[in-house]
Amino acid sequence: MADKQRENHREDVAGRANVEDTPELLAYYEDLERYKAGALWTVANKIEPWEPKSQSEPVVWRYKDLRQHVLRSVELVTPEKAGRRVIYLNNPGRTDVAAAVGWIYGGLQVMNPGEVASAHRHSASAIRFIMEGAGAYTVVDGHKMTLGANDFVLTPNGTWHEHGVEASGSPCIWQDGLDIPFVNAMEANFYEVHPDLSQAVGYEVDDMTRTWGNPGLKPMVGDGWNKGYSPMFKYEWLPTYDSLQKYAGCTDGSPFDGVLMEYVNPATNGPVMQTLGASMQMLRPGEATKAHRHTGSGLYHVAKGSGHSIINGKRYDWAEHDIFCVPSWAWHEHVNGSDRDDACLFCLSDLPVMRALGLYREQAFGDNGGNQPLL
Amino acid sequence: MADKQRENHREDVAGRANVEDTPELLAYYEDLERYKAGALWTVANKIEPWEPKSQSEPVVWRYKDLRQHVLRSVELVTPEKAGRRVIYLNNPGRTDVAAAVGWIYGGLQVMNPGEVASAHRHSASAIRFIMEGAGAYTVVDGHKMTLGANDFVLTPNGTWHEHGVEASGSPCIWQDGLDIPFVNAMEANFYEVHPDLSQAVGYEVDDMTRTWGNPGLKPMVGDGWNKGYSPMFKYEWLPTYDSLQKYAGCTDGSPFDGVLMEYVNPATNGPVMQTLGASMQMLRPGEATKAHRHTGSGLYHVAKGSGHSIINGKRYDWAEHDIFCVPSWAWHEHVNGSDRDDACLFCLSDLPVMRALGLYREQAFGDNGGNQPLL
Amino acid sequence: MADKQRENHREDVAGRANVEDTPELLAYYEDLERYKAGALWTVANKIEPWEPKSQSEPVVWRYKDLRQHVLRSVELVTPEKAGRRVIYLNNPGRTDVAAAVGWIYGGLQVMNPGEVASAHRHSASAIRFIMEGAGAYTVVDGHKMTLGANDFVLTPNGTWHEHGVEASGSPCIWQDGLDIPFVNAMEANFYEVHPDLSQAVGYEVDDMTRTWGNPGLKPMVGDGWNKGYSPMFKYEWLPTYDSLQKYAGCTDGSPFDGVLMEYVNPATNGPVMQTLGASMQMLRPGEATKAHRHTGSGLYHVAKGSGHSIINGKRYDWAEHDIFCVPSWAWHEHVNGSDRDDACLFCLSDLPVMRALGLYREQAFGDNGGNQPLL
Amino acid sequence: MADKQRENHREDVAGRANVEDTPELLAYYEDLERYKAGALWTVANKIEPWEPKSQSEPVVWRYKDLRQHVLRSVELVTPEKAGRRVIYLNNPGRTDVAAAVGWIYGGLQVMNPGEVASAHRHSASAIRFIMEGAGAYTVVDGHKMTLGANDFVLTPNGTWHEHGVEASGSPCIWQDGLDIPFVNAMEANFYEVHPDLSQAVGYEVDDMTRTWGNPGLKPMVGDGWNKGYSPMFKYEWLPTYDSLQKYAGCTDGSPFDGVLMEYVNPATNGPVMQTLGASMQMLRPGEATKAHRHTGSGLYHVAKGSGHSIINGKRYDWAEHDIFCVPSWAWHEHVNGSDRDDACLFCLSDLPVMRALGLYREQAFGDNGGNQPLL
Ligand SMILES: [Fe+2]
Ligand SMILES: [Fe+2]
Ligand SMILES: [Fe+2]
Ligand SMILES: [Fe+2]
Ligand SMILES: [Fe+2]
Ligand SMILES: [Fe+2]
Ligand SMILES: [Fe+2]
Ligand SMILES: [Fe+2]
Repeated sequence: MADKQRENHREDVAGRANVEDTPELLAYYEDLERYKAGALWTVANKIEPWEPKSQSEPVVWRYKDLRQHVLRSVELVTPEKAGRRVIYLNNPGRTDVAAAVGWIYGGLQVMNPGEVASAHRHSASAIRFIMEGAGAYTVVDGHKMTLGANDFVLTPNGTWHEHGVEASGSPCIWQDGLDIPFVNAMEANFYEVHPDLSQAVGYEVDDMTRTWGNPGLKPMVGDGWNKGYSPMFKYEWLPTYDSLQKYAGCTDGSPFDGVLMEYVNPATNGPVMQTLGASMQMLRPGEATKAHRHTGSGLYHVAKGSGHSIINGKRYDWAEHDIFCVPSWAWHEHVNGSDRDDACLFCLSDLPVMRALGLYREQAFGDNGGNQPLL
Repeated sequence: MADKQRENHREDVAGRANVEDTPELLAYYEDLERYKAGALWTVANKIEPWEPKSQSEPVVWRYKDLRQHVLRSVELVTPEKAGRRVIYLNNPGRTDVAAAVGWIYGGLQVMNPGEVASAHRHSASAIRFIMEGAGAYTVVDGHKMTLGANDFVLTPNGTWHEHGVEASGSPCIWQDGLDIPFVNAMEANFYEVHPDLSQAVGYEVDDMTRTWGNPGLKPMVGDGWNKGYSPMFKYEWLPTYDSLQKYAGCTDGSPFDGVLMEYVNPATNGPVMQTLGASMQMLRPGEATKAHRHTGSGLYHVAKGSGHSIINGKRYDWAEHDIFCVPSWAWHEHVNGSDRDDACLFCLSDLPVMRALGLYREQAFGDNGGNQPLL
Repeated sequence: MADKQRENHREDVAGRANVEDTPELLAYYEDLERYKAGALWTVANKIEPWEPKSQSEPVVWRYKDLRQHVLRSVELVTPEKAGRRVIYLNNPGRTDVAAAVGWIYGGLQVMNPGEVASAHRHSASAIRFIMEGAGAYTVVDGHKMTLGANDFVLTPNGTWHEHGVEASGSPCIWQDGLDIPFVNAMEANFYEVHPDLSQAVGYEVDDMTRTWGNPGLKPMVGDGWNKGYSPMFKYEWLPTYDSLQKYAGCTDGSPFDGVLMEYVNPATNGPVMQTLGASMQMLRPGEATKAHRHTGSGLYHVAKGSGHSIINGKRYDWAEHDIFCVPSWAWHEHVNGSDRDDACLFCLSDLPVMRALGLYREQAFGDNGGNQPLL
Repeated sequence: MADKQRENHREDVAGRANVEDTPELLAYYEDLERYKAGALWTVANKIEPWEPKSQSEPVVWRYKDLRQHVLRSVELVTPEKAGRRVIYLNNPGRTDVAAAVGWIYGGLQVMNPGEVASAHRHSASAIRFIMEGAGAYTVVDGHKMTLGANDFVLTPNGTWHEHGVEASGSPCIWQDGLDIPFVNAMEANFYEVHPDLSQAVGYEVDDMTRTWGNPGLKPMVGDGWNKGYSPMFKYEWLPTYDSLQKYAGCTDGSPFDGVLMEYVNPATNGPVMQTLGASMQMLRPGEATKAHRHTGSGLYHVAKGSGHSIINGKRYDWAEHDIFCVPSWAWHEHVNGSDRDDACLFCLSDLPVMRALGLYREQAFGDNGGNQPLL
């Protein structure tokens, strides 16, 4: 092992490690290895970086590229064999954990009318954002939800769930978003197939949204709701878009995000799930935001309109149903490409984790009038 | 003082006081009085009752009786002299504190087009429930709200507020509801007239409802909202009635209250203010509820329909815009008088106080199939 | 009724009611009375005062005066007849509700060795502060606590409880403190005698204090503790006094209260009960505080030392085991009478109510260097 | 790329992916790669495991092995060059992230009298558990704490901190514990050297423990404490051991952990920091616990006594100051090796993360009377 290449991350800064390898030290390092130990100063500068440097790359996944491949999966595999016909987004920096960005998984799924996936549950939390097709539905713990374009639905940690498309519908495509990579990293993921492979619907269709999705009103139900996720399992596009317009009429918006609303658990006003948050933001006609960066990873879905974002100095164009990601601590700013129409971005993120654990940090881009120079 | 009539509340039950007056004891009691003290056993059974016995009486205030008197106040007094032209509800058991029920004040106010009350603030919390007329508005801490029939608005503890009617409007009548008697009893009421007698409007009209009154969505505003009351100052009738109908479609409702929703602070999902709560309940066509009783006082306003309630075994009929009260721990049940139309009851209560302090208790009427026999 | 004396509280200030009685108005007022209503402007200035004016008077109850009367009750009444032998503190402004100050009841109780009061429970919350004697104990929901001088114990809302003195002990005197007047005013008081008149002890003696009274440590017990009151039923004098000394060594203290610590529910760091709070404060040798006033009523017990307080401009001297009260919004400041010894004041208050309901207000005395001139 | 080895994790279970590679599919997979995408069914069974399988191995680091190597570092490197002289615990399954177990870093540090490390801060949170030597101290945001054997001190996320040993002391060795690997994984770590390389002490020594470490008592300080970590920066051994003994006298303890107390933030009764929790447990003389497993990683330090633990069926012996780890979802049980003395285990864990995010799961070992058979 004498010629094994050793790590050493020297920095010539007061308070940082800066130790030269010597034969005596190299021998000492080998001694330590025998006791499953190491000398901190050989790795200290590596494990205590000055600031975060994400392993994820900014990527745009264009729907015009992926759509045909998603549809092709229907011909290539059966639901019985594949479980689900899904194309997942594989960030070049995160292929080891199959993540779209950071610790977030993203995929595009297709399902034909009359199909239904087998019911199961897991510790990972999921959302499903509908892109096209009619007749999609999801059942969560016995509550059935109908789903239209730009609606999204939660299948939270520990809930039995299954997705389907009514026989009377049309082929449906949606985006899946999960914290699978994160829950795996936490070594806390469990998976269970429903003993009956499907569950009975035990409530009125859409009951949870009708019960909990009322502005400034709380249903008087039993002892209330104290689970870690929102009882309003489905968030529909129309009331969301309507809310954004109402809000836009009386706010200047955020310099970095335009008119942004966060989807919340109405029982707490906190995030929809403990590990995943979601927001919808409207870029008004002609709006170009300032740049900022913050901890936390974001997976954006273009719900409406077109434009581009500048991420770490590089431009990424996007159109409806494109998906793109912003890695942690990457500079980013958004531009609506139209002077007449608004553009809406849905964002799935791990901000609830950052906030719950005290790890959220944010910084505005100070130079150049607040906008990044293009590299 | 020898012949002064002394209290003594003897009960012949194990664990309760049962001491006969003797000359020696009477002398002892006089000794204690000199030291501003007394013998507990002379009052123990009085101050530790077996269960609450409210000082308030059930009352229905009929709008057809009061409306003309409210209007007459316009001829009798000027706003300048009277401050506000208000008829207050004076419960026969609570005239000492000018309360409608328990510690809750209620009044009917009238205002002509072009009038505006002077701005002020106080530690008491208030709501204003619109009954008739066009052009009513309220300004709370610079936020102006337009008000239509069955809308209600908060003017919380410590906020500057003023009520007015636009010159283009019509004479308006509304119900005021406040916790003035409670805050006075707590010896915590402060009152201040605005130095300018009116305040500037600093925001878009209705901005707080447009910002906070969105289902499952939170605005991204600064550091959020952490005051003791709801930022959604105005709750409108139409979305409330719409919500009740949606909820009614997927719930059995409460056996005691039909389909009931509580108005909430969207930032907490708790009550709209710390001392006053509000709810709207729908009695479906033909619905007659079971009887229960609980601690806390309720002042009901008939928002829609007609029917009757049975309170402590006596029937009280009500029609639109009538107001009635249910005292603490009084048995009560409600009956919709129509087989075709629903009836809606708005209720202002001190339940937030009962709950915050651990004093809420509830009991179902067990006999007679759950309904009170009429006395 | 024509010559009935009517209320009218005119003030000649913009925004306040100032309506002269006229024959027409007097007739109108009689009309309103028939409908259980009144004209607000006749009472508005009364019910909306500029600031609180407490009905309670400042009082000192001297232990040297009351002790003999407390002891005499043992000769005068039996525990069987009296329930408990207690002298209660009867504030001249609050005799209607048997309160020592505001809505707080206070009493001095005596019990002989071998006696035990019958077990019961009520919605009112209580504390018991030991003054003299050996062998006192309290049982709360099956948990037995031994009690020495200056210890205090909680018997919270809804808990079964009984007080006793061991046969091996000596006659014990203690102060009781309860929110009986408040819970009665809230029309929420229930009282129940234990079916067996006494309860079995089901745990190790003092287990709750040994389990929960550990600094910076939480026991791993079942699902934790989520009741509205502290699981640490007994707070002992010695660790309290020790804590005050430790804290005094590293704080300047409060200008108004010296070195003050609030007794807390260790499961929440909030008040010991939802309606009653308790604190112990140390006035260092020679310390004289500045004056302030705030909402909320305080009943002080001199745990150690002697001195005086100035309340609303009048001096009240106190010595060990004296009890005195500070009414809501009364100016107050405290002076330790010794240059060598510290003085300690235990305070029972309704501050938890004031804070939970948003009614707490505080003001420093600005003139005269922060101290009240004596009237 | 045609002969590239592809992942495929087929399982022949209903609801799981089971797709055979075909030439057509392999070509399809290459297409997807060009778009930074993949077919979910090729990785689904890998990323959705049936239950967690930790990457960490159980390890005991024996103090008798490591102590000499720790001391030797003093001769080998200077503090100026090394920053700190620390031997870190390098779990064979986690060498890529320099973790002792899961996402937790552990190290042994030595410091000579008169030495002081340079002040700095980072987003990672740390604890320091003293093993031997006199005169150790830590300064956190201007608060200086003296440290003795088995005391531990927090240096939370974002606080300026520095460690030192008084010139009058002796060489000190302690264990460091940090969430560096976790915060790096979250891409949220920031590091900053103090501009002056050291900070001024601005308070009385040990003020935070004297102020906040009092049982059932809260200091009245300003607006309270609302940071994400405990204000009681130092937790001392003596009161901890005393508390364990008091608690042991009135509890049966946990079947899995004996008498266990969790160190808490006294302002919330929650964990000492948002990402790291700590507990101390006492195994009574002769005590052998039952086995269980749960999510979350634990790094144990033997504070007192000796014995062994069985982890995933294998026995690991330990003595005072040994350190061992229990990976997530590993079965574990503990045995005190003495019939006369108790043994105490300090445990640093990521349970606060598991609980805050809804990822905690626990299971008792059901077979074999609750104890694992040795493999
Ligand atoms: Fe799933
Ligand atoms: Fe952003
Ligand atoms: Fe007002
Ligand atoms: Fe009711
Ligand atoms: Fe009692
Ligand atoms: Fe005070
Ligand atoms: Fe550090
Ligand atoms: Fe464990």
